[in-house]
Amino acid sequence: MDIKGFQFSAVEAAIKKPGRKDLALIFSEVPAQACAVFTVNAVKAAPVLLSMERIASGGAQALLVNSGNANACTGNNGMVVARETSHLVAECLGIADEAVQVSSTGVIGVQMPVERIKSAMPALVEGLSSGTLDDIAEAIMTTDTFPKMEARTGQAGGISYTVAGIAKGAGMIMPNMATMLSFIISDAAVEAGFLETSFRSVVESSFNSITVDGDMSTNDTCLIMVNGMAGNSPITAGSPESAVFEKLLHDVLLSLAKQIVKDGEGATKFVEVRVTGALHNADAKRAALAIANSSLVKTAFFGQDANWGRIFAAVGYSGAAVDQSRLSLSFNDVCMAKNGIFAGGDSEARGTEILKMNEFTVCVDIGLGNGTATVYTSDLSHEYVTINADYRT
Amino acid sequence: MDIKGFQFSAVEAAIKKPGRKDLALIFSEVPAQACAVFTVNAVKAAPVLLSMERIASGGAQALLVNSGNANACTGNNGMVVARETSHLVAECLGIADEAVQVSSTGVIGVQMPVERIKSAMPALVEGLSSGTLDDIAEAIMTTDTFPKMEARTGQAGGISYTVAGIAKGAGMIMPNMATMLSFIISDAAVEAGFLETSFRSVVESSFNSITVDGDMSTNDTCLIMVNGMAGNSPITAGSPESAVFEKLLHDVLLSLAKQIVKDGEGATKFVEVRVTGALHNADAKRAALAIANSSLVKTAFFGQDANWGRIFAAVGYSGAAVDQSRLSLSFNDVCMAKNGIFAGGDSEARGTEILKMNEFTVCVDIGLGNGTATVYTSDLSHEYVTINADYRT
Repeated sequence: MDIKGFQFSAVEAAIKKPGRKDLALIFSEVPAQACAVFTVNAVKAAPVLLSMERIASGGAQALLVNSGNANACTGNNGMVVARETSHLVAECLGIADEAVQVSSTGVIGVQMPVERIKSAMPALVEGLSSGTLDDIAEAIMTTDTFPKMEARTGQAGGISYTVAGIAKGAGMIMPNMATMLSFIISDAAVEAGFLETSFRSVVESSFNSITVDGDMSTNDTCLIMVNGMAGNSPITAGSPESAVFEKLLHDVLLSLAKQIVKDGEGATKFVEVRVTGALHNADAKRAALAIANSSLVKTAFFGQDANWGRIFAAVGYSGAAVDQSRLSLSFNDVCMAKNGIFAGGDSEARGTEILKMNEFTVCVDIGLGNGTATVYTSDLSHEYVTINADYRT
Repeated sequence: MDIKGFQFSAVEAAIKKPGRKDLALIFSEVPAQACAVFTVNAVKAAPVLLSMERIASGGAQALLVNSGNANACTGNNGMVVARETSHLVAECLGIADEAVQVSSTGVIGVQMPVERIKSAMPALVEGLSSGTLDDIAEAIMTTDTFPKMEARTGQAGGISYTVAGIAKGAGMIMPNMATMLSFIISDAAVEAGFLETSFRSVVESSFNSITVDGDMSTNDTCLIMVNGMAGNSPITAGSPESAVFEKLLHDVLLSLAKQIVKDGEGATKFVEVRVTGALHNADAKRAALAIANSSLVKTAFFGQDANWGRIFAAVGYSGAAVDQSRLSLSFNDVCMAKNGIFAGGDSEARGTEILKMNEFTVCVDIGLGNGTATVYTSDLSHEYVTINADYRT
């Protein structure tokens, strides 16, 4: 993969258990345009607070990220550590402190082992000459069982560029504890206003459309940096190139988002929840999220039980406008219920067969309007309980 | 227990598995004043729709309730069945159809076995001469592991009266599938306006303050019937007797609500979540419910892991106004975090000891105002997953 002008490094700083890299650095050889979306949780980690402040400038040149410690609920000292470590990076790289974004993921409420991070810094910066994006994807894992990466290549004015991304997160998705982080880089040149608009819109239909456990993280961050080193003329809104860029960005983010759900803590099923016929899109999303977050629906998925009544119940309490006599539901192409009641025939047996598959789609039609939404989720298994009961031990 | 003028009966109508009573009747010998609160789910069971319509009159004389089938998502036919079966009861008892309340609990989306209910009707009515409230408490159980009852005795103008109640529900609490039902009866005479006001206020601080899995039922109902047969002068608002009555009512409902949490599906812990210092009571309840519903918090309780960071994260996304530097938290009397950060010392070890107990209190102080709320919840265990993955099999 050729993403011009970006360098990568990851080292073991002994924040996590021995033998695993836990401190990583992404560096753009030239200042990059950047924007980011952060958790809306009122309890925000120190690196989130610092990065929010810095991203307002619209630029960034480096990202320092660690796993194993979230640097959340760490008070003033957490802020001091975030500033201090990013200052070290800035110094080593010869850039301004403000050009360094900082991200952390891991346990909440424990102070960062700042001396270990300082000690690891020289090796981290030196590693930039030989590291790859894969190294970063691995270093940011916590309860993840596999690293998450995606890349796409496009052209603008005959010049090739790449959009690549990595992500982590397996629980606390809609997220909270193993917490979602995603970093997207591209060597394309993109006009700033268009970058921001398209990035936010794509995040909405990807990372903001997945849920594993309904918890929301103190650390969630999705950051994009584009450095223009591919040499194309900046992509502007409304141009044919803008549609291509947005499509590539969407493919990369949606792929990463789906990888997170597939790696959902203890997940045995990957479920696409599609709601149609809502009064408007916001209602459709409300209903889809209520289904995707219901413990009862998710345990039924785990049990391969075609218990469509629980899904109607979730739609009913979602807050979406609902006339129960108009609801219908299908698992893949098997209609389970129509006009609010059981479809009859052999649908129970056929629906159960669908639920035995590893991946399937739940379609709910509300029958009131044209609002639609799609959300991706996993089931709720014994393994989820095991992982989260014993997380810190 | 002496509750004047009420009769009870429960029989086996073969709605549930053989050997378990599943159809029950409560009858007041004279017309009773009644009020009720029902699920706010937009998908409502047929008996809920019918009972809502009828309770508007402010009176009821009988309650017909079945377990094993929720008569929810059953369309027009569900309404026909609810009307038909309650008509049979009215006919047998010589009262108006409108005086019969109807309640169902069990699986959603399956048509009621109406012929079996009809066949069981003569035995049900005949049983009124010998049944007890305990029989009803048992007949309404689904995944409940024990029947839930409570009673208190008071005096008004020197005359003794009783407030008694039963409840069922173990999952789908905040509820949805095993679904919450509670029926309260009293032989006191109570002025109608006061009955309604005090009943709604007490429901808010009892049944509306518990949560097992965050799902909300299509069938939830809490009904109170008072028949005045004790012979006291009607209790009116503002009188000394009114305070006594409201206290008894509160004791009965809170006891039933706590019994439901203790019987929470797979529960191994009973947790009181107390939030203080919120901007107002509504914010406090929002924060308390977010904690009590968080899968990550509940699995940590199950794992006896003093992971207070997850609790702060839940408060942060609850929607309550929060300044993270003012948050503090304790398990019973052990302070775990203060001013948003870890309290240090031996609090980790001491907090872990608290979490090993079967019952404990989580206190969160938001530090912004005087709003308070208390919510009761359980943990999220392997057993919860097992019960709900296999519910219908």
